[in-house]
Formats: sequence, structure tokens, C-alpha cells
Amino acid sequence: MSEKPRTPLLTVDIIIEISSGGIVLIERKNSPHGWALPGGFVDYGECLESAAVREAKEETCLDVTLIEQFHVYSDPLRDPRHHTVSTVFVAIADGTPQGADDAKIARAFVENELPNPLVFDHSQILTDYFKYKQTGQRPKP
Amino acid sequence: MSEKPRTPLLTVDIIIEISSGGIVLIERKNSPHGWALPGGFVDYGECLESAAVREAKEETCLDVTLIEQFHVYSDPLRDPRHHTVSTVFVAIADGTPQGADDAKIARAFVENELPNPLVFDHSQILTDYFKYKQTGQRPKP
Repeated sequence: MSEKPRTPLLTVDIIIEISSGGIVLIERKNSPHGWALPGGFVDYGECLESAAVREAKEETCLDVTLIEQFHVYSDPLRDPRHHTVSTVFVAIADGTPQGADDAKIARAFVENELPNPLVFDHSQILTDYFKYKQTGQRPKP
Repeated sequence: MSEKPRTPLLTVDIIIEISSGGIVLIERKNSPHGWALPGGFVDYGECLESAAVREAKEETCLDVTLIEQFHVYSDPLRDPRHHTVSTVFVAIADGTPQGADDAKIARAFVENELPNPLVFDHSQILTDYFKYKQTGQRPKP
């Protein structure tokens, strides 16, 4: 256990509930192209919560308040580039999102008007999230 | 985003509720010495759930059923060796735990008779867990 093992790469994604209604998605600048939750890699030495606040700010220009850890997604095939494991947070924010950094556009969407395509497993994450909001049931292991 | 960034190392820990009562802790063979939740590194290409079932089996000889993801702990100082980020699962199992692999001993303990010292942030994790069992309140971000 003293050697440094190879483990999956660690990311965060943030479901931002905006006070004017809806949740914030970004249109990605980079491949894979499409819409996604704001998020990105966690820096070595950075806790998940700091990474989530930082990535939300970088990609949407919003100052978010984290409400809860929602769920961790770790299917090795969820990202075509690497094996990434993402902790998804729920957060709230005021104001108008603006795309920046890796995001061409950042915009709020309501459940029945989500954009297409949603990349990675973000469609599954959002299905799980909307179910959780309705029923209080989190995804099972 | 196409370069491979350096992110924290990924681990799992498992709170095993044993059917005869108590939760299972192990006495570690390696440094830091003391008692801990069973757990270990996630392999690249392995999902968290598989890692949790595998590590529980390796260290306690128990076949566990995962009940839920509890919480992710990511303080950069939680492990003196590396920055590790651990997803903690709650699981159930029948039978008698037996220490193996990195565990000298595996044994069930009840809340008011936990062993000393508990290494890493496992004392905090257990405090959070017992609070959750009593109140339904998960740790906040």
C-alpha cells in the first residue's frame, strides 16, 4: 500500500438549481460535443467541494452554494477518453449563467425541455436527479 | 481536457452492518497502524461498487451486499501518505468476519465500544454514520 497505485481520474459535476427556475447546463467547447452538466477534474490537493465551486464558477460564472452530495458515478465506460469517477453535487445559485472556459454557452433548462445531445452519462444523472427530487429516492449501488 | 490530469487517488471504505450486531472494523497490518474500516484503492477500470465488494471480501472474508453510497470524504490531509478520496458505502453481511490481506484482525464492534486508535478520518466517518442512522441526516458539503 506504500506504492502509488493507478486509480481512476476524479471529477465533479454540479447540478445548479437556479433561483429563477431550471438547472444549468453547458454546451461543451471540446469533444465530446454536446450538452453537459458543468464540471471537471479535481486537482490533487483540492477537496471535492472546492473543485465543485471552482468548476461551476469557471464554466457558468455563477457563485454556487453546495447543498448536498448527490451520488458518485463510476462506470468505466461513462467517459470515452479515460476512466473518470464523478461525484455529483446539488447546488443553488442566483443570477444568469454565462458560458466561459470549456463552455460555449451556459443556460438554464427545465426538466421537459432538456437539450440534445447530453454527453457522457449526464442523461442518466439527470433522470436520477429528477426522480430524487420527486420521490426522495437516491440511486442504489 | 485531452491531457491526463493529476487527480487525487480513489479509494472506497465499507461500513459493514453484520447481521449478528455491530459493524466490522479491521486492525491494519501496515502503517498507519490502528483500526479502520475495511477498504482500499479502486483499480483503474473498476467501478466503485465492485471495488467495495472486493475489498470487503479481501479484508474481512465476508460477502457483502451494498445498501447505499453514504458519503465521499476528500480532505487532502485525511491520509498522511497521499491525497486519497474515499467513497464510503453501507453494506450488510452474514457470518463471522476474519482478517486477511491487509487486515490482521476483523471484528464487529458496537457504537459505544469502538476500538482505539481509529486511523485516517474513520472516527469522523463513524460519527457521521451513527448520526445518520439516528437522524437520517447525511453530512453536509
